[in-house]
Amino acid sequence: MRNFSFYNPTRIHFGEGQIDKLAREIPAGSRVLVTHGGGSIFQNGVWQQVEQALAGYTLTRFAGIEANPQFDTLVKAVELGRREGCDFILAVGGGSVIDGSKFIAAALCHAGDPLDLLTGTRAKAALPLGCVLTLAATGSESNPHGVVTHVARQEKLPFSSPLLYPRFAILDPRTTFSLPARQIGNGVVDAFVHTLEQYLTYPADAPLQDRQAEGLLITLIEEGPKALANPEDYAVRANLMWCATQALNGLLGCGVPQDWATHMIGHELTALYHLDHAQTLAVVLPAMLAERREPKRAKLIQYAERVWGIEGDEEAKIDGAIAATRDFFQALGVPTRLADHGLDAEAIPQVLAQLERHGMTALSERRDLDLDASERILLRAL
Amino acid sequence: MRNFSFYNPTRIHFGEGQIDKLAREIPAGSRVLVTHGGGSIFQNGVWQQVEQALAGYTLTRFAGIEANPQFDTLVKAVELGRREGCDFILAVGGGSVIDGSKFIAAALCHAGDPLDLLTGTRAKAALPLGCVLTLAATGSESNPHGVVTHVARQEKLPFSSPLLYPRFAILDPRTTFSLPARQIGNGVVDAFVHTLEQYLTYPADAPLQDRQAEGLLITLIEEGPKALANPEDYAVRANLMWCATQALNGLLGCGVPQDWATHMIGHELTALYHLDHAQTLAVVLPAMLAERREPKRAKLIQYAERVWGIEGDEEAKIDGAIAATRDFFQALGVPTRLADHGLDAEAIPQVLAQLERHGMTALSERRDLDLDASERILLRAL
Repeated sequence: MRNFSFYNPTRIHFGEGQIDKLAREIPAGSRVLVTHGGGSIFQNGVWQQVEQALAGYTLTRFAGIEANPQFDTLVKAVELGRREGCDFILAVGGGSVIDGSKFIAAALCHAGDPLDLLTGTRAKAALPLGCVLTLAATGSESNPHGVVTHVARQEKLPFSSPLLYPRFAILDPRTTFSLPARQIGNGVVDAFVHTLEQYLTYPADAPLQDRQAEGLLITLIEEGPKALANPEDYAVRANLMWCATQALNGLLGCGVPQDWATHMIGHELTALYHLDHAQTLAVVLPAMLAERREPKRAKLIQYAERVWGIEGDEEAKIDGAIAATRDFFQALGVPTRLADHGLDAEAIPQVLAQLERHGMTALSERRDLDLDASERILLRAL
Repeated sequence: MRNFSFYNPTRIHFGEGQIDKLAREIPAGSRVLVTHGGGSIFQNGVWQQVEQALAGYTLTRFAGIEANPQFDTLVKAVELGRREGCDFILAVGGGSVIDGSKFIAAALCHAGDPLDLLTGTRAKAALPLGCVLTLAATGSESNPHGVVTHVARQEKLPFSSPLLYPRFAILDPRTTFSLPARQIGNGVVDAFVHTLEQYLTYPADAPLQDRQAEGLLITLIEEGPKALANPEDYAVRANLMWCATQALNGLLGCGVPQDWATHMIGHELTALYHLDHAQTLAVVLPAMLAERREPKRAKLIQYAERVWGIEGDEEAKIDGAIAATRDFFQALGVPTRLADHGLDAEAIPQVLAQLERHGMTALSERRDLDLDASERILLRAL
């Protein structure tokens, strides 16, 4: 096992009715900037629960944080928060709203150009942030990371700071009942790929972390399809919500190599061609596993045996595991080919140019995945 | 899944050489009360590493916190800390030193009789506490709980407060190389039973938590015997250390029923007859599983299948799992019978009287384990 440090101070309140705990978690007298996406929180009753729990607080609402939250949108929220003297941020939504709200929390404490915070300047302070999660996917509700899209630059810009751990996250599975099937499928794929990127590398004498990851993967395989079949099955939604949080709260990656190449290539596909984040992962990951068959051989076999229960010789196990992964994503309604998104080989050079521009020329757990390899992966994904 | 809240702010630094991080974690200028057990930290070099990392700090050393730390001993540490104006506690040792240091941290901020803190008064403040762990077992390094023994009252008194989460815990597996085999065996049993007490109850629609627990159990089964066979195998010690922390950091118990009856009965055996803590668990647990065969039936079968890989009919699986658990403990050098500790049926009435005196008359995940059932368990453990 490698040396590591682990720290995660987010307080989780999980279950039905937990939105009631908001007033316990936000200091009395706070001026709260409540951030959200579109109108779904009015339709599904979440806003009403939040407003009722925070009666007596000064609430300023900022609507319109989009999927892949945009810098220009978030700057407007920063201006609103500053004008209203807000001193606490409450994100109500999924990973995009929470990622965007992390940026807002840091930008409200930053004197210079907010873009600094996405281009190398680490936040020195941030307003306290809490979340009411309404979509199980990214794990942003209990980690210190975010990604913001800069449309004019066609870039997804990641940022991170220990100051940006949410103080608390409220996870009520009922808030996810009304989600469209596309978002459920995307969420399961996102959590699954987060887990694989911390697991499917090479053996590192870390049997507990391996089994924690395998347990997560198997649970997602079992529960994901049920969530699509029975959208109001509370137990299923609860299990998916807890899986998604656990998939990216830092625990799985403790002491093991990690490979975020699928995310890095996927980010460029979203920035250029506007695929959903999870759609990019479902396209890139099976191709990545095929391309990286040799460096990932030992773990691919373990993945085949323990997660998919595949028997046979080594090659059959690896082939079977990659095919099963692709089939799983497709059964969740998430396509796994660039062609499914209307993209062909002509789309690839621009992705490679972006990867080069962003310094993504030595990806993977071994830092040996160069642009040629990325090209082969994209060709396999056509 | 049941509703739950989860919070664990302890920062973990894991691996070789991490003791160097002490100066980063303890505020400069602190007056540090360093607590430890016997002389082992001088022999294995841990004290020298601590002293070197904290050059420039004012250190006051308190030696002699025993296994099952005693109230009378800890009160002396409180007096020393008060006299020296200490404002930070650094526990260097295993679960007993850390548990005792939690009590010291709270008592140094308590104006009245320190015994209050063990008899119903919750701590209102506590000095900050950090740990250098030297024995993988209890999980105390990243949880808010402790147990202190009051010799005159023949009682083990548990206490808990969110104020008592260690600020940080340094886990260097090398510090455990020199431990005697008895402490290694005890540590594995302790972590194993902590896991089982959060797992072996009844199904609760929590498949991820089940698999996290099963992953831990299987890893302990694989690694425990290796640690005895090859005391200086770093990877094995690292895996055991991480398992023990994960077994009682609060995560496994999220959203599921729990059954701490084995611990409660075990505590009385230690208080009355001075068995090691883990020795009591190894004696009580197999008897508990046999006695609770029906209420635990579904999970016993799952445990047999997934953890021990036992095939056959239901009864054979349950019998096999209980026998395998007993054999595992014995192979670790931890006996599983009261007779192995020189105790016979005459020892039982006093245990039952203590349980009654402490209100332990409705134990288990179903609150239906009464004194008669405890008696049957102890008879099965003879």
